[in-house]
Parts: sequence; structure tokens; C-alpha cells
Amino acid sequence: MMSPDQTPASSRRLRLGMVGGGQGAFIGAVHRIAARIDDRYELVAGALSSDPERARASGAELFLAPDRCYDDFRAMAAAEAARPDGIDAVSIVTPNHLHFPAAKAFLEAGIHVICDKPLVHTVEEAEELAALVQRRDLVFVLTHNYSGYPMVRQARAMVASGALGRLRVVQVEYAQDWLATDVESGGQKQAAWRTDPARSGAAGCVGDIGTHAFHLAEFVSGLRCTALAADLTAFVPGRRLDDNAHIMMRFDGGARGMLWASQVSPGTTNGLRLRIFGEAGGLEWQQEQPNELRFTPLGEPSRTLLRAGAGSLPAASAISRTPAGHPEGYLEGFAQIYRDAADRIVARLESRPAPDAVPLPTVEDGVRGVRFIHAAVESSRGDAAWVTVPAAAAP
Amino acid sequence: MMSPDQTPASSRRLRLGMVGGGQGAFIGAVHRIAARIDDRYELVAGALSSDPERARASGAELFLAPDRCYDDFRAMAAAEAARPDGIDAVSIVTPNHLHFPAAKAFLEAGIHVICDKPLVHTVEEAEELAALVQRRDLVFVLTHNYSGYPMVRQARAMVASGALGRLRVVQVEYAQDWLATDVESGGQKQAAWRTDPARSGAAGCVGDIGTHAFHLAEFVSGLRCTALAADLTAFVPGRRLDDNAHIMMRFDGGARGMLWASQVSPGTTNGLRLRIFGEAGGLEWQQEQPNELRFTPLGEPSRTLLRAGAGSLPAASAISRTPAGHPEGYLEGFAQIYRDAADRIVARLESRPAPDAVPLPTVEDGVRGVRFIHAAVESSRGDAAWVTVPAAAAP
Amino acid sequence: MMSPDQTPASSRRLRLGMVGGGQGAFIGAVHRIAARIDDRYELVAGALSSDPERARASGAELFLAPDRCYDDFRAMAAAEAARPDGIDAVSIVTPNHLHFPAAKAFLEAGIHVICDKPLVHTVEEAEELAALVQRRDLVFVLTHNYSGYPMVRQARAMVASGALGRLRVVQVEYAQDWLATDVESGGQKQAAWRTDPARSGAAGCVGDIGTHAFHLAEFVSGLRCTALAADLTAFVPGRRLDDNAHIMMRFDGGARGMLWASQVSPGTTNGLRLRIFGEAGGLEWQQEQPNELRFTPLGEPSRTLLRAGAGSLPAASAISRTPAGHPEGYLEGFAQIYRDAADRIVARLESRPAPDAVPLPTVEDGVRGVRFIHAAVESSRGDAAWVTVPAAAAP
Amino acid sequence: MMSPDQTPASSRRLRLGMVGGGQGAFIGAVHRIAARIDDRYELVAGALSSDPERARASGAELFLAPDRCYDDFRAMAAAEAARPDGIDAVSIVTPNHLHFPAAKAFLEAGIHVICDKPLVHTVEEAEELAALVQRRDLVFVLTHNYSGYPMVRQARAMVASGALGRLRVVQVEYAQDWLATDVESGGQKQAAWRTDPARSGAAGCVGDIGTHAFHLAEFVSGLRCTALAADLTAFVPGRRLDDNAHIMMRFDGGARGMLWASQVSPGTTNGLRLRIFGEAGGLEWQQEQPNELRFTPLGEPSRTLLRAGAGSLPAASAISRTPAGHPEGYLEGFAQIYRDAADRIVARLESRPAPDAVPLPTVEDGVRGVRFIHAAVESSRGDAAWVTVPAAAAP
Repeated sequence: MMSPDQTPASSRRLRLGMVGGGQGAFIGAVHRIAARIDDRYELVAGALSSDPERARASGAELFLAPDRCYDDFRAMAAAEAARPDGIDAVSIVTPNHLHFPAAKAFLEAGIHVICDKPLVHTVEEAEELAALVQRRDLVFVLTHNYSGYPMVRQARAMVASGALGRLRVVQVEYAQDWLATDVESGGQKQAAWRTDPARSGAAGCVGDIGTHAFHLAEFVSGLRCTALAADLTAFVPGRRLDDNAHIMMRFDGGARGMLWASQVSPGTTNGLRLRIFGEAGGLEWQQEQPNELRFTPLGEPSRTLLRAGAGSLPAASAISRTPAGHPEGYLEGFAQIYRDAADRIVARLESRPAPDAVPLPTVEDGVRGVRFIHAAVESSRGDAAWVTVPAAAAP
Repeated sequence: MMSPDQTPASSRRLRLGMVGGGQGAFIGAVHRIAARIDDRYELVAGALSSDPERARASGAELFLAPDRCYDDFRAMAAAEAARPDGIDAVSIVTPNHLHFPAAKAFLEAGIHVICDKPLVHTVEEAEELAALVQRRDLVFVLTHNYSGYPMVRQARAMVASGALGRLRVVQVEYAQDWLATDVESGGQKQAAWRTDPARSGAAGCVGDIGTHAFHLAEFVSGLRCTALAADLTAFVPGRRLDDNAHIMMRFDGGARGMLWASQVSPGTTNGLRLRIFGEAGGLEWQQEQPNELRFTPLGEPSRTLLRAGAGSLPAASAISRTPAGHPEGYLEGFAQIYRDAADRIVARLESRPAPDAVPLPTVEDGVRGVRFIHAAVESSRGDAAWVTVPAAAAP
Repeated sequence: MMSPDQTPASSRRLRLGMVGGGQGAFIGAVHRIAARIDDRYELVAGALSSDPERARASGAELFLAPDRCYDDFRAMAAAEAARPDGIDAVSIVTPNHLHFPAAKAFLEAGIHVICDKPLVHTVEEAEELAALVQRRDLVFVLTHNYSGYPMVRQARAMVASGALGRLRVVQVEYAQDWLATDVESGGQKQAAWRTDPARSGAAGCVGDIGTHAFHLAEFVSGLRCTALAADLTAFVPGRRLDDNAHIMMRFDGGARGMLWASQVSPGTTNGLRLRIFGEAGGLEWQQEQPNELRFTPLGEPSRTLLRAGAGSLPAASAISRTPAGHPEGYLEGFAQIYRDAADRIVARLESRPAPDAVPLPTVEDGVRGVRFIHAAVESSRGDAAWVTVPAAAAP
Repeated sequence: MMSPDQTPASSRRLRLGMVGGGQGAFIGAVHRIAARIDDRYELVAGALSSDPERARASGAELFLAPDRCYDDFRAMAAAEAARPDGIDAVSIVTPNHLHFPAAKAFLEAGIHVICDKPLVHTVEEAEELAALVQRRDLVFVLTHNYSGYPMVRQARAMVASGALGRLRVVQVEYAQDWLATDVESGGQKQAAWRTDPARSGAAGCVGDIGTHAFHLAEFVSGLRCTALAADLTAFVPGRRLDDNAHIMMRFDGGARGMLWASQVSPGTTNGLRLRIFGEAGGLEWQQEQPNELRFTPLGEPSRTLLRAGAGSLPAASAISRTPAGHPEGYLEGFAQIYRDAADRIVARLESRPAPDAVPLPTVEDGVRGVRFIHAAVESSRGDAAWVTVPAAAAP
């Protein structure tokens, strides 16, 4: 178990800025807590809102200096890049449609980026960002936060170690019920932008939570989904984007899988669940009980592995903040992404090689997520015909 | 709660025969226990094996009179039909390929039939049996035993009552791991016939357990699956029939669903699980914890309904043999099919109308199951193209 | 896994009689199903009620011959003992106060006895029965049915094998809520006799369910409770017997334990649960999920052992009627007691030695249960002072 | 749901110091994370170790200024009290025996205290601290962190609202297995001081975790335990303090309860679990699944209440940082204590009345915990005789 705040890789906290996340937002506060938990960042600047009044008020609540409360992210990127004490990295926590211009602005200003998912609306935008990241040699971390859970890392390490043998079946699902009615018409802000094609892109549920499920499946299995057949539905009358997705998947190496994403299934809450089966064993993990991982070697009783408990691999133990039985949750998993990002950013700042063992989602995962979204939408429009999910950009 | 053995609908136990189920068989013993639990049958005759020696030895163990131990089911049908104390009904518990000739023989002899699933190999055979049942006005019960669980009946009654509102999503799965390796080559008798096209028909996993899942989904939802897209796989090298099935489904009325059946998923045992979601609520039931039903009215906390406990409807309470907290299981669920069959057979024998409220699987469900199997196989051969599941026989 | 109905130890079913269990009774029907499941008994006689009309009507429903429907158990014992086809054994399923005279009558008539628990009201009666059983060399089985669950047998076998090392802590509880209000005044028949000292003896909850918990703890642990300190309460106003019991226990060899029995705890149903901890490992079993046993070797992940699944010892596998994943429940556990009793009775009838490996509760366990009840009542009257639980009868 | 970091009650973060918690410690890091999560504190000073070298190194890792890294807590109290930018509050996270002198030093210096539990070794010390707190009018918070979990607050609010009716039974347990062997002899630092009377006081397990269970039971039930009977055991050979405790409890108003605390029970991890039953309903909560609360109104199905989900009262929703389904854990529960402490300290600093609705454990709870420990030890020495737990200090 790590002593989380006693082993900084650097002699100072990183200076962090934030775009989005002002009063009334949800995910911005989550990013801020995640950044604080391991004490590797200090929030010093923000374009928390495009409304000047709100930007200032939001900043004051967060103890930001008034001159570092911006109402325009481009102005922020320019000003911070020019300051000797300017931010080292920026967190982008806006609705999806602003990810692209914001990320581009900060990357061009030479500032490392931590960005919420899904990356952007189009494959073109995604590839442009990926190219920019590479050209500027910057760190770009995409907060597929569920990959920061210790027992997800444990699962990945177990699969990689061969504990399951050759993989055959991958079942992943992410089910919620908060969009079971037309809450977007009732003024629910979170629902409004998520169901609006202009702000969310071509997909609703598939983009919002399907991408998490897809990333998790590939992250843990180590496989690439090569093709999918999708049946997307908008069940709530008047809704313009899908709120339920049924997807069959084929993976390289021959494994097959299913992905179910839903935001209209009463009794489910934040039901991300992964089951992976190989020739030699099976694994099951559920986000709502994240400290447990069920592992069954073929022909033996199932074991319940506990985070930081017996059977916990370094991949999980080393990033645990508390002993087994002291539940860590969503915020700690999110914090792990920030902690790993800090290690990577510090290494870049100090011109050291990045810690290569850390399986952190990057802009490439963002590109992949956008490809997934577009394949799913295309397949569904084609009556669930198989659509290839390209492995990499066309030359 | 019923007092299960104190309210016979008849002045005597029904006389029961059995085809198959001799020494070394599995499902035959299950049928016999099921028939005994509520004391409505007396086993008096059998063609327990086609091997004369084994037929006799098996019968002796079951206290059958020697002259009613047959080694040929056709001879048995003829002899029993001719006896004044001949059997009222026969249980057919052979491998699948014998269901058709055996059922035909007993139906033609005027004997009621209780038959294991899946019904037969081909749609033509299925329809021939259905026509024969109708022509002879006999009772034909197919042992989709999971529909005999009280909380499955409860779920069906709740859906029918509108507790979930209009249905949207149906997720059903049936996962096992006992065929994760090539046990059929090692002499495992149960595995051998289930993976043999000659004895199992066109499908393996889809026929063996997929039909149960399909029946359960339709039974509880009250919906008909109108089309499906299936991706069947035989993962174990050398296996000739599918051992894993991924299926997307569309239902009348617009609901969508997924069905996953697998016999190669380590850590699953007999994992039949159904989740149904409507506009107003959701339900979840798992066969391995059959006395519980999770019900969530939209926007309210989830309730755990217990068999015969608070909130238990007559559909479940009236068929419970014990109070809540006294777990009933697989054998009691199976027994319920036999009990309901007895009510129906006795009514026929006494020329009374059958108790119409009892939702018992019949030869029509068998026809539907065969249609499902063939649609799945056809779809999979067509690379998971959508295939219609016909509602009824073509004219 | 056994093939439950194909290996009779005898060439005929045992002839069974029953005392109590007429219309409106609960546990009688349970005993009858339990006797039928493995097909080792045939119910042929009964004194199902002391009311002649009811006795006859109840018997008719169970297909008993009219001349074997008695309204007096003493008359029944005499008549059946005199018949050449008289009963081999009798089941006594009356309220507690009739156990003693009924058991005595049948034992004196040379008939084997299967009796519900708790055995009798006083230690003197208990010892008298025990002496009678010994003198007449008869089988006397007490239906502490929970000891018939395969995974309880598995737990006992694991403890005996040393898998837990030297035992330290035994926590057992049995919690219900059906007596949380004064249902006995409302005419609930089951509640009425259980809360009536004349029919239940000196204890309520302690006798009705506490004895099950106590038996289970000793049965699995293999330890003897040497002393206890009990705090019994009657929470429902007007109730004359305890409805909640808190008990601390000391065992031979130094282990310590707690027993909680309650019938006034809302949200519990039939919550019998045992946890045993030794130097080398721990076990947990819950009656409401009886097919699972949680086992944790010290310093290793917890395993979930499934009945008839991987890691299942012969003690559990050999008595399983169905494979893992096919839940067996309360009735099958009860049936195991009947099955084991049949083996023992047949051996006695055939003058063979009894199968000694079968850990069946007998009249000695009944004596012990009565001692436990009286120790608990005495301790509670003494403000929870420690009271010895004698190991055996005083000389 | 609160927006946790956007509603500071003050225009600045509180300045925090820490005593103990240097390199190699466990609970110190937990306190620091807890203090950071809601951004209400800034750690600026510490006496992290009495070893000067270690104190300095530990402080450097935490970005403390060198001149505020002390190796003597008395010197720290004096120096910080003298600085204009001195600490507002101090966290005391040493082994138990230092709680008293450290708390006394800071209280006398006029500095608010947040102290780990159990408070001190003797009732006299406890009362001296309580008197000092009152005399100096300072905030003293004892980190019974489990009372910071939202669903524990929910449970307390439900009981207070009468949802359970008059209480009858309180069952609480806290089971671990990490001391099942003599790890203290092997150099395990955490084990060493916890099993050492000089550093832990008169009790081992009872003090370390029993006090948490005791506090939780009283906190949620709103009842006072008036008397207890305890059977304490040291199972591990050579251990000088109890490692298992069985305790029966009586509460004001007539409720009865049991408390089990163990550190030698293999398969348990950090198993704090509370069940409370009243005339009208029951509640169950388990620390390892802290986001759920099971509630059963008598005669109705059990509900699973989720933190911030349907049925969540303001007591839980208002302190939730994330929506239902996003698990919060141990660190967030701990953080709630810090957040509530900050509100109270700020109010004191600004001479405003404290937010009185916040049920924060204080020095009085510490006094009560010490009384509980001593009553348990005294009872056990008297062979589990009933010992009164005084409600308040003798005059």
C-alpha cells in the first residue's frame, strides 16, 4: 500500500488550471477533488465559465486569485503560457463540444492537458488533436476514470499475466436510469447537453457512457475490438440521441463480446460491469462494489479478491491508499488518473522518461473512443450491420 | 401459501410412465423427484433404457413391476394403452433426438405427455406434434421448468399488471462453464450428446440453454420476439455445435433485448438471469437465488421481494410450499410444472375445463423454441443478419 | 452427486405413520414432502388430528386407507404394532407438549421415531426418552433439519479435517420477524402454541429457533458448549415467553461464542447464520443462501464453495441431488434427514450395523437441546449469570 | 448533493498542524487526505515524529516549511500559538498514549483539536480534557470517522424520525483478522503499539475497534448503553491485551444489544456492521458497502436505500459529493468529519454559533468511549458480571 502523499516525484505541486466546472457543474468538482486527494496539484487558474460574473464568483469560491479567473479559455491559455508561474497543466471539464477548441488552445500554448471524455465529436478533430499532442510532445490524459480503480488495474494485470488463458468472451454493460423520462425538457442541465446533438455529438448514451464501457473492455482485456454490430434506440419520445445501445463485438484473436449501455433502465444506477472469460478462468468486476474482483480459475471455487488484500497484485496494492476493508471509491479511482498524470507531467518537465508501466488513457484512447462512437452510429443506421472499428488512422 | 399435499384435485394419484432416465442419466431423476414432491403421481412403468438389462435394473431400483419395465417405448405405449390400469401420462426425458418419435408414439396411443426441452430438431417435426396434440385433444407439457419458480410467476404477474409500464429493454442471459473444455471427448455422457448434431439438432448451447432463456424472456415479459440477430461461436476446438451465443432481439411493441448463452464461461454455473425494464420500473431475477425478485419502481428505492413474503402476489404465494426465508429451489420449481400438469390432466380425464390461469409451457412453446433455434442458426450463418421469428405456422 | 432415487438400500419403501400434521398444520406437510423426495417412505397411517372428523378428512386427502386414520396416537401405536403390514416408523409433528407422550407410546410399541424439535419440555422427560430408545434399541431421529443441508455437512467436515485449525470464535444467530407484534392474540395458530408455556415449555424463541442455532453451532464446530450466560427478553407486551435471546457461550477447548435468536427483528425472515473462526481459517454459512459456503484460509482470498461444485467434499457432493447452480433448499435439506433416517432404520430392520458416518441428530441431541433451553432460562433469571450446560446425565 | 468545494464557509482555508503521522504511519496519511478532500484546510506545520531527522524528512515530503517541522509537540504548540499565521487547529494522530499530553498542550495553547480515537487511557484523563475544552471554549473533534458516512447519518435520521418505532434490539459487530497471529512479535509496527498496554491502555481490540462499534451503535440509535456484560479474550498466545470481545448490552428505554469485536476472525476484513430493530422496522448497514442502507418497514419488502438516491434524506444527500452509484468510501466519510469540524471551527473563529445540526463526535464522546472500555475490562475481570456505564461524570 502506498503512503499516498509522502512520496512526491517532484519538489513542488503542479500548477493546475481548469476550463469549465463553474457553479452548478458536476464533473468539474469531481476533477478538483481528484486533483487534491494525492496533493500533487494546486489549482491556481480557471476559465470556469464564459459568463464573466460567474467565472469570477466561481473562482473566488475556489480561492483563485482574481487575475487568474478568466472568462475565455483562449485568453487563459495565452496569459498562463506567458506567466513565469503559469499553469503546468489544464483540466478541460466542459460539455463535449468545447473539448476540441479548448484542448487545441492549450496544446498550442505548450500546456499539458487532462480532458474529460469523450474526446471530441469527429474522427477528424480527434486525429488533429492526436497529431498536435505528438508534435508538441505534451502529455494528454483522457479521464476514463474507471481505469484508475485498483481492481480494474488488477484485472488488467491478471489478464496480461495469462491467468485467464486465451480470452473468449467479453461482456460489458453500463446501465443507468436517470434519463428514463424526458428530464431534459424539464431543465435538468446535465441531461440537456447530453441529449443535444450540438453539444454531445452523434451519440447520446453511446458517447456518454458507452465509451467508458468500451474503454474498460479493451483496457482490461488487452484486446482490440475489430468490428461491431449496433442497435441503438431512443426510447424516450422526442429524444434526439440514443438512450439505449445493444452492441455485439468481435475482437482480434477471436474473442466475442457484448456491450449494453442504457440510461433508461429503472433500478440501475451507475451499473458499469465487466465480465471476461478465457480458456483458463473468468473475472467479474462491478463499479458499484469496486473494491472486489471475483476470479474463478476454471474448475476451482471462485475467489473474492479485495483491493490491497490477499492476492492483490502490485498493480492494485501499490496504488491503494488504505488497507483492504476500507472502501475506496469513485473519487479515489479518479484521483489515480490525476496522480499518474502528475508523474508523467513531472517526468516531461524534468526531461525524464515517463514511468512506462502506468496504463494511462491518452489522446489515442480518445481517438479510439470517437471511432467506436462513429462505428456504432453507422452500424445502427445500417440496421446493425457489422462495421469495422479501424485500428489506426488511415495513412 | 398452499398446503401442497392436502388439496388433491382428484381422488387418486395419476399413473405415470417414463421414457429414458435409466441408470446414469441426470434429468430423469429430476423429473421423478418433481413428480413426487406434491404427491400427484405414481411412477408405474418405464422404458428407462433401450438396453433390456439396464431397463430392467433401472426399473427395479424404482420399485417398478417387472412387467412394466420396457426396453422399447413403442411397445410401452401400446401395452400401457391397452391396460385397464395403464399410465395416464408419460414423461419423456431422453436426449433430444428421441423426443419426436417417443412423443408421437404416446400421443397416438392417447396418452398425455410431459416432455423435456427443446421439443424436437426441426420446425416440421414440431408442427407435426402440435397438430397431433390438437387433434387428439391431449395435454402436452414442455418442461421449461424455470417458469415454475414462484418468483418467475410473480414477475410475469407484475409485468402483466402494468407495474413496469410499457416495456423497453429485456436482458436475459444463461451462462455456464461446464463445457469450457472438450469434456465430450473424455466420455462425459451429458456432454457427448449435447455436442452431437445427430442427437441435439442444429444448435448446441442455443438449444440446450438458449431456449430456456428465450422462453423465460417471453414468458415474463409477455412479449413476442419478432426478429433476432445472432452470433454463434464454437470456442472449444473440434466442437461441432455452438458453445456461446450472442443474440440481439426485437420484440413486438418496440422493446429491444439481448440474449447471451454460454457454456464456456468460467465462474458461471447455472447463471440464468433476467432483467426487464419498462417506462415505470424494472425487475431482476436470478435463478441461483430464486426466492428473491428485485423490483424498482422508477424513482423509488429497490425492493427485494421474497417468495411468500410481503408483496408476494397470489401467483407466487399460492404455489409456495414453505414460508418466506425457507428457500425453495430448482426441484420445487420443476415440481410446480408437474403439479400444474396434473391439474390439467385430471381436468381432461374428468372432462372438466382446464384451470386456465395456469401459464404452463405447452407444445406451442416447443414449436416456438424450435423456431428460435433455427432463426438463431440461420442468422449466425448470415453473419448475424436479422432473421424473423415467425409468430405462427405458415398456412 | 448421488442419483437420489436409484440406490435404495432396501427392496421396499419404509411404511411411515404420522402424528399431527392435519389440515391447517405447517410442519407436517414439510415432513411429508421430505419423506417423499427420495422415495424411501410410503405414508400409510396417521393420527393427524385428535378431532375424529378432521383426522379422517386429513387422511383422505393424503390417500390413507380409512382404517388407518386414527384420532388417538396411543390407539394408533397399538394397532399398527399389531398389524403384519404395520408402520416401520412414525413422524411426530405435533406441538411440543405432545412430543413426549407420543414418542413414548411408539417407542414402547417398538416403532422407530422421527420427531420434531425441541424434544420435550423437561430434562427428566428427555432423559426418560433417551433411556427408552436405548433399552428398546430403536432409531430416534430429531429433525434438526438444518444439519441436513449439504453445505452444513461440508462445513462440519472441513472443521473436522482441520481446515480451520483450532477453533476460537463461534458466532451463530437465528433472526425472524414474524412475532414482532402480538399475532398470537389475533388467532395465528402457529404463533399461539409457540407463545404458550403449556404447549411450548419454559422458553419461546429460545426453544423454537434457539435450539436450532445451538445445534447447528455444535454440529458444525464439533465443540460442546460448556457454559452460557443468557439475557432473554419478551419485547411484545403481554407475551409470556421470550421473543429475543442474547447468549454468550464458552466451549470446551477454549473457544467462545455468541448466539442471538430473535423473532421480533423486522427485515429478518428465517435468518439462521453461522460463522466459525479458527487459527487457520474461517467459515460462513447462511440458511437463506444454503448452497454457498464461504471459506477463507487465513491470509488468502475468500472462496465461495458451491454445493456439488469445485471444492465440494463427499460430505456435500454425495448427498446432492442436482449439480451446482441448481439450488436445493429447505425441503431437500429436510429430506436428507429422512433419507439418512431411512438408511439407519433399514439397517436396524435388517440387523445390519448402521452407516456410522452419517451425522444424524438423535434423542441425545434432543436431551442436549432441552439442557440448553433450561440453562438459558436459568441464566436469564439469574441476570445472565454463567450456567453450566451439563455434558451428560448425572449418574 | 452538495458541490463540495464551492461553498466555503470562510474566505480562507484553515491552517492545520499535525502531531504524529510521519513516515511509516498509517492513520496520519488518512487524516491528511480527509483534510484535503473538501479543501477546507491547508497543512502548514507538524510534529510528525519525535526523531528530528524523520520529522524534517516527513515534513519536506508534505511541502512543509522547514521552520514549521517540529520534533516536539509542546514546542510546536508554543511556537504556533505565538505566530501571527499560526495554525488554527491541530490533528493528533499518534499512538493512544500520546493523545493526552498532546491534546492538553494544544488546548492550553488555545488551538482547536481534532484527535484520533480512543481518546485517552483513563477516565480521569478523559475528564480532565473535557473540562479543559469547556474552560477554553475550543472545538475538540474525535475522529469516530464512521459517523461521517452519509448512510450512517441517514440511519440516525431515520431512527430519530421514528421510522423504526420504539427500539428493541441493537446488534453491532466489528470483525477483523489481521491480528490472528502474533504479528506484533514480527515487527509489524501498527500491531506492536496496539497490543502494548503501555501505548494502548487497558484494552486491545475493545479500545481499537470496539469503541468505534460502541460509538456507532449509540450514534445511530440515539440510545445510551446503561450496562454491559463483557467476555474478553486474548486468543493469540502471549498477547497481553484482548483480541476478541463478546459483550451484551442494555440500553435506556429497554432495548438490548450485542457487540462483537474481533481481530482474530479469518475472512473478516474491516467488518463493522450495525443492525437496529424497532417495533415498526429494521435497518442494516455495513461499512464495507457503505453506500447502501437496508430498510425494512415491518410487514413490507426490504428497500435498499442508496446514498444520494431515492429515499435519501437531507442528512445523507446534503453531504454527498457524487450522485448515487458513484461509490464514496472510507476517505470521504473521514473527510466529512473534517468538513464538519471546519464549519465548527470557523464559526468559533468568527464568533458565530456553531451549526448545531451537525452530529459531530466530540471530547464528550471520547469520555464515553473511555468509560465503555473500562466497563468492559471491569466486567470481563468479574466473569462478565453486569457493569454500569455511567451517563456522566460523577460530581
